[in-house]
Amino acid sequence: MNIGKPDPVHFEPRDPDWAAKVRASFDRQQVMDLLGAELFAVGPGRCEIRLPYREQLTQQHGYFHAGIISTIVDNAGGFAGFSLMPAGSSVLTVEFKLNLLAPGDGERLIAVGEVVKPGKNLVIARGDVWVVKNGKKTHCAIMQQTLMTMHGKENLSPAPLSQGKG
Amino acid sequence: MNIGKPDPVHFEPRDPDWAAKVRASFDRQQVMDLLGAELFAVGPGRCEIRLPYREQLTQQHGYFHAGIISTIVDNAGGFAGFSLMPAGSSVLTVEFKLNLLAPGDGERLIAVGEVVKPGKNLVIARGDVWVVKNGKKTHCAIMQQTLMTMHGKENLSPAPLSQGKG
Amino acid sequence: MNIGKPDPVHFEPRDPDWAAKVRASFDRQQVMDLLGAELFAVGPGRCEIRLPYREQLTQQHGYFHAGIISTIVDNAGGFAGFSLMPAGSSVLTVEFKLNLLAPGDGERLIAVGEVVKPGKNLVIARGDVWVVKNGKKTHCAIMQQTLMTMHGKENLSPAPLSQGKG
Amino acid sequence: MNIGKPDPVHFEPRDPDWAAKVRASFDRQQVMDLLGAELFAVGPGRCEIRLPYREQLTQQHGYFHAGIISTIVDNAGGFAGFSLMPAGSSVLTVEFKLNLLAPGDGERLIAVGEVVKPGKNLVIARGDVWVVKNGKKTHCAIMQQTLMTMHGKENLSPAPLSQGKG
Repeated sequence: MNIGKPDPVHFEPRDPDWAAKVRASFDRQQVMDLLGAELFAVGPGRCEIRLPYREQLTQQHGYFHAGIISTIVDNAGGFAGFSLMPAGSSVLTVEFKLNLLAPGDGERLIAVGEVVKPGKNLVIARGDVWVVKNGKKTHCAIMQQTLMTMHGKENLSPAPLSQGKG
Repeated sequence: MNIGKPDPVHFEPRDPDWAAKVRASFDRQQVMDLLGAELFAVGPGRCEIRLPYREQLTQQHGYFHAGIISTIVDNAGGFAGFSLMPAGSSVLTVEFKLNLLAPGDGERLIAVGEVVKPGKNLVIARGDVWVVKNGKKTHCAIMQQTLMTMHGKENLSPAPLSQGKG
Repeated sequence: MNIGKPDPVHFEPRDPDWAAKVRASFDRQQVMDLLGAELFAVGPGRCEIRLPYREQLTQQHGYFHAGIISTIVDNAGGFAGFSLMPAGSSVLTVEFKLNLLAPGDGERLIAVGEVVKPGKNLVIARGDVWVVKNGKKTHCAIMQQTLMTMHGKENLSPAPLSQGKG
Repeated sequence: MNIGKPDPVHFEPRDPDWAAKVRASFDRQQVMDLLGAELFAVGPGRCEIRLPYREQLTQQHGYFHAGIISTIVDNAGGFAGFSLMPAGSSVLTVEFKLNLLAPGDGERLIAVGEVVKPGKNLVIARGDVWVVKNGKKTHCAIMQQTLMTMHGKENLSPAPLSQGKG
């Protein structure tokens, strides 16, 4: 038994258009555009978002603000979950918990969300954020997150993570 | 015994300039200016931040984005803790956990952070966020947070919440 | 507007037998019997569990173990949620987050769970734990929790908090 | 860059007696004896605790109770952190967050805690719990945790996880 790490998981998307729907949803998220975030990679149950340094995203020491870090890793986890949800559904963030490990000091943030358990209604994900400075990456935050599948609510999919649970 | 709610707490600030230092720290947080957030009220161990609706803060349904909600409630809790910290120290967010209760649908967000336990090094806070629409407020998020006092690090105070734990 | 605290909430149970079903469920929880926990009070969306000191519940300094604290406050929140769920359903703990504020040093633990948002499928609750020593209570832990209503799964109700999400 | 997973980390213990002190601390935890838990393996920044099925640990469906799951994974994370702490110090759990993924249905629980960030004062860890049934393991819980090093408080080390932050 591979104890100590969850076994490498290979998820089977239920929606053949999983990749296209994630990209379409990301592209329509106005806040990602505001921040200048890039949907770098999407896989079944996995999403990587990158965010280049911009002065408006920082506090006065030139570090990425913690709120910005939480915004992109919440999105990375949410889209990771959305990639495994059936066609015609949308995703909501129920809750997330973020630990900050190091200052967001660098020229780029890399946030990765990965599904741990893709339940029928609830999807559990983990997230990691690295900050890259002069090519060296520092692990700066970890996240644990609960997502909800909204069945038959496709119209919500353009902005899955901004809806609370209403 | 008033069981069921923590007793109403009246904290005694250790820094006579507690209110001024919180306002100065808030004013220097570039990201609060970017969002258009207002430090509405500060008390010993309590902070209220209000954020008027702006299209750039929303997703396409006109709701405040979850990341924006987490950013202001993290700040409200962090400044609540900072108000009780000794002179010459700064505050860092160690971690926070956010539950979303309802969509951020309205013309204003109100985030309140309150200290539950002001330890010497670690300060525990709770947060609540309401969204106000047509004068009616809806409880849209709750938060639980751990803060750390950085003793003798006054120079960090201008942007206490953007530093991770570095 | 009563900003700074959620308005006092008065919940209307959907199940006329809400009190009886909570007590029946508690009585059938073998682990509560093992610990010697008492269901002290139940209200709509509220549950208080008390646990007298017993040596087997402590670590060697005579304090209640953190795991015991989390067990009773998880239950207090879970039963608070269960009291508002419709007849024929059961409750599962999706996740909870616990902050420890002080050592569990005393002759009795008092755990109170209160519903913050009773959604149709997901119920959000907060919890507080006090330890009582020589009549003086100390706030020793706070919790934030997500519960799920399992509709039409009455047979699960005897042990609502032991089921994960399976 | 190995993006998507934290790089495999190899921690260097600061206390040459790291393994012995963890085992001694575990052996003196009365609650581990009560539950029948076994310290299966200890490494620098890693701890694995196994817990055989016993009827007293379950709810009436024969599943391990969620509180028992949280108790052993909190301990696994806490001892993982303790293994990296300097001689003469002890460990406290500041907070932890647990997601339940599946019922604790099986003949053995396996809880693994691993340090993510060993800070001087705060140590961040992750935990995973599996339940083993007929030789098949099911991932049943994940945890994210903050620990504090109590410098010069060796006398606390026998029961590191039962002290809150007092």
